[in-house]
Amino acid sequence: MKFYQNWQARAIREDGPGEWFAAQVPGNVQCDYGRMMGWGDISVGENVTKFRQTEGYTWEYRTALDYCVQPGETAVFVAEGIDYRFDLLIGGEVKLSHEGMFSRVELPLDACAGQELTVRIHPHPIRESAEFADRQQADQCVKPPVCYEWDWHPRMLVSGIWQETYVETRRTDYIRRCEAFYTLSDDLSFVQIRFESDCDAAVEIELFDPDGKSLGTGDCFDIENPRLWWCAGQGEQALYTYEARTDSHAVRGQIGLRRVRMVMNEGGWVEPIAFPKGRSVAPIQLELNGRRVFAKGSNWVNPDIYNGLIDESRYDALLTLARDAHMNILRCWGGSGINKKAFYDICDRLGLMVWVEFPLACNNYVGTPHYLAVLEQEAAAIIRDLRGHCCVVMYCGGNELFNNWSLMTDQSLALRLLNKLCYELDRDRPFIMTSPVFGMGHGGYTFYDPDAKCDVFTLFQKSHCTAYTEFGVPGASSVEDLRRIIPQEELFPIRDMGSWRLHHAFGAWGAQRWLCMDVLNMYAQEPLDSLEKVVDMSVWLQTEGYKAVFEEARRQAPYCSMAINWCYCEPWVTAAGNSLITYPLKPKPAYEAVKTALRPVMMSARIPKFDWRAGERFSAEIWMLNDAPRAARETARVTLLLAGEEYPLIQWDSGDVGANENRIGPTVNFILPDVDATQMTLRLDAGEASSEYRLCYRRSEKYAVSRQMNM
Amino acid sequence: MKFYQNWQARAIREDGPGEWFAAQVPGNVQCDYGRMMGWGDISVGENVTKFRQTEGYTWEYRTALDYCVQPGETAVFVAEGIDYRFDLLIGGEVKLSHEGMFSRVELPLDACAGQELTVRIHPHPIRESAEFADRQQADQCVKPPVCYEWDWHPRMLVSGIWQETYVETRRTDYIRRCEAFYTLSDDLSFVQIRFESDCDAAVEIELFDPDGKSLGTGDCFDIENPRLWWCAGQGEQALYTYEARTDSHAVRGQIGLRRVRMVMNEGGWVEPIAFPKGRSVAPIQLELNGRRVFAKGSNWVNPDIYNGLIDESRYDALLTLARDAHMNILRCWGGSGINKKAFYDICDRLGLMVWVEFPLACNNYVGTPHYLAVLEQEAAAIIRDLRGHCCVVMYCGGNELFNNWSLMTDQSLALRLLNKLCYELDRDRPFIMTSPVFGMGHGGYTFYDPDAKCDVFTLFQKSHCTAYTEFGVPGASSVEDLRRIIPQEELFPIRDMGSWRLHHAFGAWGAQRWLCMDVLNMYAQEPLDSLEKVVDMSVWLQTEGYKAVFEEARRQAPYCSMAINWCYCEPWVTAAGNSLITYPLKPKPAYEAVKTALRPVMMSARIPKFDWRAGERFSAEIWMLNDAPRAARETARVTLLLAGEEYPLIQWDSGDVGANENRIGPTVNFILPDVDATQMTLRLDAGEASSEYRLCYRRSEKYAVSRQMNM
Repeated sequence: MKFYQNWQARAIREDGPGEWFAAQVPGNVQCDYGRMMGWGDISVGENVTKFRQTEGYTWEYRTALDYCVQPGETAVFVAEGIDYRFDLLIGGEVKLSHEGMFSRVELPLDACAGQELTVRIHPHPIRESAEFADRQQADQCVKPPVCYEWDWHPRMLVSGIWQETYVETRRTDYIRRCEAFYTLSDDLSFVQIRFESDCDAAVEIELFDPDGKSLGTGDCFDIENPRLWWCAGQGEQALYTYEARTDSHAVRGQIGLRRVRMVMNEGGWVEPIAFPKGRSVAPIQLELNGRRVFAKGSNWVNPDIYNGLIDESRYDALLTLARDAHMNILRCWGGSGINKKAFYDICDRLGLMVWVEFPLACNNYVGTPHYLAVLEQEAAAIIRDLRGHCCVVMYCGGNELFNNWSLMTDQSLALRLLNKLCYELDRDRPFIMTSPVFGMGHGGYTFYDPDAKCDVFTLFQKSHCTAYTEFGVPGASSVEDLRRIIPQEELFPIRDMGSWRLHHAFGAWGAQRWLCMDVLNMYAQEPLDSLEKVVDMSVWLQTEGYKAVFEEARRQAPYCSMAINWCYCEPWVTAAGNSLITYPLKPKPAYEAVKTALRPVMMSARIPKFDWRAGERFSAEIWMLNDAPRAARETARVTLLLAGEEYPLIQWDSGDVGANENRIGPTVNFILPDVDATQMTLRLDAGEASSEYRLCYRRSEKYAVSRQMNM
Repeated sequence: MKFYQNWQARAIREDGPGEWFAAQVPGNVQCDYGRMMGWGDISVGENVTKFRQTEGYTWEYRTALDYCVQPGETAVFVAEGIDYRFDLLIGGEVKLSHEGMFSRVELPLDACAGQELTVRIHPHPIRESAEFADRQQADQCVKPPVCYEWDWHPRMLVSGIWQETYVETRRTDYIRRCEAFYTLSDDLSFVQIRFESDCDAAVEIELFDPDGKSLGTGDCFDIENPRLWWCAGQGEQALYTYEARTDSHAVRGQIGLRRVRMVMNEGGWVEPIAFPKGRSVAPIQLELNGRRVFAKGSNWVNPDIYNGLIDESRYDALLTLARDAHMNILRCWGGSGINKKAFYDICDRLGLMVWVEFPLACNNYVGTPHYLAVLEQEAAAIIRDLRGHCCVVMYCGGNELFNNWSLMTDQSLALRLLNKLCYELDRDRPFIMTSPVFGMGHGGYTFYDPDAKCDVFTLFQKSHCTAYTEFGVPGASSVEDLRRIIPQEELFPIRDMGSWRLHHAFGAWGAQRWLCMDVLNMYAQEPLDSLEKVVDMSVWLQTEGYKAVFEEARRQAPYCSMAINWCYCEPWVTAAGNSLITYPLKPKPAYEAVKTALRPVMMSARIPKFDWRAGERFSAEIWMLNDAPRAARETARVTLLLAGEEYPLIQWDSGDVGANENRIGPTVNFILPDVDATQMTLRLDAGEASSEYRLCYRRSEKYAVSRQMNM
C-alpha cells in the first residue's frame, strides 16, 4: 500500500533558512518558491530571470511521515526520482546520500511514522572553470544540461522531487521485480516469453493476449504466430499484458513483441570505392520485424521548464498530436534527459518508436572515476527501466558529442561505458555512441543558409545523408502568444533587447536567431511594418521550409532512412523557434504543414528552390511517395497558380507503387510570365494525396526596382 | 618445477588412426606429419597443396606423463595454447574440453605419473555454407583466419600444441598471479605502482629501477620523477623490474611506465563545416607521455605458416631489423592473431609500439551465443596476458570489418563485446573497433592504380587521411629465392600457372597480382626477357614506391599520424608480394629503401609522379622531415642526374626545424632535355640526411617510337 505525503519546502540561503512553504510533489521546488515569492508566470516578460538568485540555494523538503503499518508489514520510503544531489534525513540524521535523478532510492522505515523526514537537496554541480555560464558548467554531472541554458531554453536550474514519492508498506511476498524477456524465432513465427521475478514468495504470472484473453499462468510461454507490435502506420500496436501475483501483491505490465535491428542503409556498402579506402557509413536504417521502415518524426525536448510538473495527460495530448501527424519516431534528445514512465507506456500504445538518448549533450563529459560511477548507476537504472518497452528502438550516447563544440571521441570513457552497459543489460537493442555518426547529418536550422548561399529547398537536395536527425526552420509564435509574453511597450517595433531577446528572438545563436528578421526581409517585397506581417512571413517560410525538407528526405529513401526535425515541443513560450508546437499544447501552422508532408501516400514535388523570378524556367520533379505497408496508385493533375491564373502543366498516373517505395515521375518545365504577384502556388491535385507549395515569385528586375522605389 | 614431456602424434582419418610419429612441442602437428610422410619443404613447388587432404583429420598427441611430486606438492598439466578445439584425456577418459587457442588450460593431475595423457584435436571449424574455401569458412571461430588462405598465404589449416606445455608441480605458496598496475600523475612527475597477487601465502614483492637497483619491498610503491618508457627514437626504453617471492616460488616481471592516449589528429576538429553536419573524424593520433608521436612502421603478419615453430630468436631477429629501420610501431594484423609472449617482451625492450588486433579479419563474424562466449573467453585471456606490456599502445577489434567485403558494423555484437571487455579489463588503453575507422585509409597495394590512373606518388599526394595503416607496393623475391621455390622447368618464361600462381605471382587478387607483369611492362622500355630483368624492374618500383608513400605520409603530418605499410614479413617464400622481408629473415631491397625513408631527420622530395618525359617541366618540393624529439638543421644541394650529366637545381638551408616538426622548402623546376636515357635520379645531398630518387625517364615521342620499333 502506498501512502503519499504532504510536503513543505524551504530555501537555505547564505543568511540561513527561509520560511517553509507548500510544495507540490512531484514538482520542482523552484516553482513552489516562485509562487510563494509572487514572481509571476515565468513565460511572461523577464520573470524567469528572477530565479538566477536561487542557484546557490540548498533546498529542504519536509514531511511528518504519515503511514500505518499492519502486523507483518515493513515500510519503505520510495523516491522514484529526486533532482539531483541530496540527502535523506530522519529526525535530523542523514540516513542516505545520493547523486542522480534517474535512479530510484528506497529507505527502509522502522517505526518512523510521525517522525520528520527531510530531503535536503544540494546546489547544482557547476564547473566553476567553465568559460560561459551555460551548458559548459554541466560537464561533470549526469543531469540534463538544458536547464543551464540553451538557445531555446532560458537558464533555470530546476531541482526537487520530480518523480512519484511515497511510503510503501510491504509484506514478505512483495514482488520487487517482475520482468518479461522474449526470444522471437528468425522468421518471427514463434516466440518464447520468459519471466524473471524477484520475490521471497512464489509468484504466479498470468499472461493475456492483446485482446485480453488469458493464455494461462507460468514462468515461460511458447506462442506460435504471435501478434507483433508495429510502429504507427506499419501495423497494429499489439500489446500482450501480464499480471504477477502473490497473496498480498500484484504487478502488471505490457509486452510488445517485435524485432528491431539497425541495418546498413541501402547503398551504404557501395562506398568507399577509391584507394586509400576508408570505412563505409555507420548503419542507421531501422528494421522492424524484418521490414525496413522510414523513420519520420521529431526531436522531443522537455515540454516544460518544470520537468516535475509534466504528467500523463500532458504526455498523452502531445504524443497523440505526434501520432496524428503520421510520425512514427521521436528522438528524445539527450540534453533534456529521460521522461517519466507514462511517456513510454503511451508510446508503446500509440506506436511511436522512441530513440532514447542518455543525458549527455554538447559537452566533453569528463572521464573521472566519480563521473563514471554516477553515470554507470544512472545509465543502468535507465536501461533497466526502459528495456521492457517495445517502443524503445535504440539507445544513443548523447547529442553531437563527436563535433568540435563537444570534443568527445570514440575513445571517451563515458561513451565506452554506455556501450558496455547497453551490451550487458540489453544487448539486442541498437546502440550508437552519438548523433550524428558517420553518414548522418544535423542542421541546418534556418530557412536560408548564409554560408551555402541557398535556401533549405536547395540545401537538402544537394545533401546525401543516411539520416537527417536534426533540421529546423524557425517560425514566430502566434500574435496572440507574443502579446502574452512580450510586454506591450516592447512589442513593436521589434528590437533586439529585453523580452524579445530573452525569448530567443535575437542573440540565441548568432545575432539574428530565431526570429531571423534578416531572412524575413530577404523574401519580403513589402515592408514588414506590423507584428502581423512579421508573423505571417515567418509562418510562410516555416511551413514551406519544413515541407520541403521532410519531403526531400523521404525522396532520398531508401539511402536516407530518417527525417527527424528539430524540434517537436518547447519548454515555455518562445518568441520564435523551430518547434512545431507552442508551449504547452498549441500546434503551430508548421505542425499542420509537417502533417501533410508525412502522409503515408502522397504526391510530392522536388522544387529546386523557393524564390522564383519572372522569365525563369520553373521546373519541378513530380514524385509519388509511399511509406505505407501496401501498394498505392494515384493520378496527379499538376497546375501552377499565378496572379489568379491557372496554368495546367501535366497529368501523371503513378502506376502501382509498391509498399514502402517511392516513384519518380516526370519533371514539369514552365517559363514564368511577368505578372503582378509576390507568390505562386504549385498544386498537385490527387484527392487525398494532393500537395500544394506556396512559393516566392518576383517580377522581372525593372518592376522589382519600381516596387522598391514605392516603398 | 616444470616437467616438459615427450610427445607423439597421429592422424585419425576416416579409415581409422594412423601410425604414431614424433611430435615437436611447441609446434604444429601438420609439420610433424608432413615430415613423417616425406612431403618435403612446403616452400618448394606445390608441396604445400599435399596438406589439403589432412583438413578433415582429427589429431591426437600422447605422452606418458613424466613428472615427480614431492610431499606437499600438487601437479598440474598446463597448456599455454592448443590450436583450436580439443579434449584432454587421461587414461582414455575425457577430463577437459576446450575451444580457443589463446586461453591457457590447466588440468590438475592426481597421481597420474606414468599414465597416458592424450590431447585430441578436432578438425577445424569450417562453415560449410561458405561460398569459397577461404577465410569465409572462418566466420564462426576465434581462430586467425589467415590459414584458410589469403592472397599471400597458402591454405594450410595448422593446428596443434603451439605454445609451451608442461607439467608443473606446485606448493601451497605457489603464486598464481602477480600483476602490476600504476597511476601516473597528470604531469608525469609521480607514479604509484600497485601489485595484485593471487596466492594462498604472503607474497614479498621487490621492485628494481631500470638500472637494477632495488627500491625495496612492498605492495605499493610511490616514485617521484619516474623514468618513463618511450618508443624507439623518442627516448629510452626504461623498464622497472620486480620479483614476487614466496618460500618456494618466484615470478619476475617488467614494467614500462608511460601514458598513452589516442587524441584527435591536428586539424581533425575543423571539419565538417557545412550543413547538414556529420561527425568529425575518429582520432588516431598516438600521444605518448604527452607528446604526439608520428607512428611509423609495418603490418606484422605471422612470420611462419607454422605458428607453433616461431621462437624467441626468430622474433628477436625480425624485431631488431624493424627497430634498425627506424620503425616505432607494428600493427599486429588480426588475421594472423596474437603472438607468443616473447614477442611483447622484446617489443617492450626495443621500444616498438604494438597495435594489438583481435583475431577477426575480413568476415562478418556471427553474433551467436556460442561465438560470443568463445570470443569473450579468448579476448579476456588476450587482454589479461597483454595489459602488463608497455609496448601495447592500443587494441583494435579486427581488420577492415566496416567494409563491404566484411559487412560488420558498429552494431555488430562481437565488436561491442570487445569494446566492453577492453573497457572492463584495461580501460585506459585506446580501443578502436576496426581499421580503418572514419578518416583512415587502407590501400592501395600496387605501384600503379588502374582505377585512379596514376602511380603511388600521385595517389598519395591526392589523399588526405588521418593515418595510412595499410599500403603496399609489391616486389619480386630475389632470383636466388625464386630458383629455390619455383621448379627449374617452370622458371622462365614466367607464366600464370603452377608454382608461380601458388606462390602468389598471379591470381592472388585479380589476375596480375602480385608480380604485376602489366605494371612492370608499363615502365619497361626494353623487353623483360630474363628473370633477372623482371626482378630488377620489380625491385625498382617497390623501392621507389615505398619511399614515395612513407615520405608523403610523413609530409602530411601532423594531420596524418601514422604510416604503416602492408606488410613486414611473410609466412613462407612468396614469388612476389608486399613484404619487406623475405621468409624467413632476408631483408628485401625494399627494406633498405624504407629504412632510408624512416630516418628521423632527412631531406625529402615531393615529386608529383614517377614517370617523366623529355620536354616536360620536372618539379619537386623540397622538405625537411624531422620526427626526432629535438630540433635539427640541414642544408641540401639538389641535383638532377640524367644521362651522365649533373644538373644543379638549388641549395636550401632548412634553418632550425623543431622537434617532431617538418618544414616545407622551395619547389625546384626544370625542363627535361631530350637525351638517351631511361632513368634519372634526383639527389638531395645533405650528409646523413641525404636522399635520392631514381625515376623513370622517357625520350620524346619520336625516339620512343623508334625504340619500340627496334624491340
